[in-house]
Amino acid sequence: MGLQMDAAELAKFLDQVFPQVRGEFLVEALEEEKILMRLCVQDKHLRPGGTVSGPSMFALADCAAYAMTLARIGEQALAVTTGCSMDFMRKPAAGSDLLATCSLLKLGRTLAVCDILIHSVGMQAPVARASMTYSIPPNRSV
Amino acid sequence: MGLQMDAAELAKFLDQVFPQVRGEFLVEALEEEKILMRLCVQDKHLRPGGTVSGPSMFALADCAAYAMTLARIGEQALAVTTGCSMDFMRKPAAGSDLLATCSLLKLGRTLAVCDILIHSVGMQAPVARASMTYSIPPNRSV
Amino acid sequence: MGLQMDAAELAKFLDQVFPQVRGEFLVEALEEEKILMRLCVQDKHLRPGGTVSGPSMFALADCAAYAMTLARIGEQALAVTTGCSMDFMRKPAAGSDLLATCSLLKLGRTLAVCDILIHSVGMQAPVARASMTYSIPPNRSV
Amino acid sequence: MGLQMDAAELAKFLDQVFPQVRGEFLVEALEEEKILMRLCVQDKHLRPGGTVSGPSMFALADCAAYAMTLARIGEQALAVTTGCSMDFMRKPAAGSDLLATCSLLKLGRTLAVCDILIHSVGMQAPVARASMTYSIPPNRSV
Repeated sequence: MGLQMDAAELAKFLDQVFPQVRGEFLVEALEEEKILMRLCVQDKHLRPGGTVSGPSMFALADCAAYAMTLARIGEQALAVTTGCSMDFMRKPAAGSDLLATCSLLKLGRTLAVCDILIHSVGMQAPVARASMTYSIPPNRSV
Repeated sequence: MGLQMDAAELAKFLDQVFPQVRGEFLVEALEEEKILMRLCVQDKHLRPGGTVSGPSMFALADCAAYAMTLARIGEQALAVTTGCSMDFMRKPAAGSDLLATCSLLKLGRTLAVCDILIHSVGMQAPVARASMTYSIPPNRSV
Repeated sequence: MGLQMDAAELAKFLDQVFPQVRGEFLVEALEEEKILMRLCVQDKHLRPGGTVSGPSMFALADCAAYAMTLARIGEQALAVTTGCSMDFMRKPAAGSDLLATCSLLKLGRTLAVCDILIHSVGMQAPVARASMTYSIPPNRSV
Repeated sequence: MGLQMDAAELAKFLDQVFPQVRGEFLVEALEEEKILMRLCVQDKHLRPGGTVSGPSMFALADCAAYAMTLARIGEQALAVTTGCSMDFMRKPAAGSDLLATCSLLKLGRTLAVCDILIHSVGMQAPVARASMTYSIPPNRSV
């Protein structure tokens, strides 16, 4: 079971289902078990001092892992976030976009697990790590 | 070492340091090891379908635990989110505020740990659980 | 859907399926959404210095949450640990048993979530917190 | 700040401080930000059915991350496990050792964070993922 959508189809699908965040999250690359997603940092993502907020990093990790999962199970399917763990390790660089490198570690019949590493563009050390778990309801037909 | 701020002082402090979310997070009750915080749900917190988004629940858990920690260590101190784990268990009720009940499990010299249970107002079963960890930098004087 | 086993039946069942740890984990109390389980601390659970090891605390949290879940879904059913998060907050008291207070936060068709607080007997502050997630395979008949 | 011990010194140190698990955990390779550690699976690590138990996988992740951290901060230093999250994704192969690939994501003055992927020897898909957090007490001199 390979990719059910390519990067362009996936981007179009995300824009349709999450119109309120159009332009914030960009699919930079997509492979069978990996996706690279960018958070185009805007004022609303920032804390005082110019650093990206925790909820924005959570949103990026969740969006990347959700997109990775949907790219594999197809847009008719459902995936619901059931668990998350994150480590916040460094302050993101002020004024830089964030890049999430997301690996699909498991895609089972009812559960998907992704591991995500988040970097500030231009900074070598990672700013955060996340793992996200999704429940895939058994009845996949809409 | 008891509370360094009461509920009113804490609310005022949060409004000063996070002016961009003023009116979103309300301190409903504050004790030495417990805080009750409300997310006043607005359109920007919602996913299509009317349910509160994951990042909004993360923000509520983080805000409650941060406020609990600051209420104890005082507003001159610093606390930086270093870790988080969440379980998303049920869909929040559409159109309802969320209430976070946050317990301070540990307040050490360099680490604080909080446990948070999130409910939709009027719904008995919890919608999410979180634990948040904060690093408290050694030099507390500003 | 209430308890499928009482405390005595549950203890007997655990002894049958985990004979290698017989006498280590005791069911102290059982309610519909709560279980109290004791780790009878033995030499093999200790680190140098006399404190209980991390893996032993993990085993206690897992055993308590597994037992809670099985007490509800019945011994013919299956439950597989899929996720865990723990915070280790204090050194356990040397020479004391550990008590886990485990709450069943969710029991869905395919997922169960428990929250666990671990104390050293005779010590008021908790030594660790855990959440455990179980997948319940769809076909429950053996 | 590079490695304070090489693989042989690290192995010798672990044997000294954890004599009760001598021969269970082997350092297979060590680099500045990565360690490969083997769990030599024995009967005591197994669940009925022949699969490696959850607590044994926790112990492997903890040992790998602890060893990685100590290799960098030196054997006079202290590191205490403060947090852990794990995803259990597949049943380990029966009768196979486990290999943990552990990456040091952060080594700060007071906190270290490692990410660990666990494989059964001879199996391509990972059986578990873990992240471990350590507190490094400020006074490093013994």
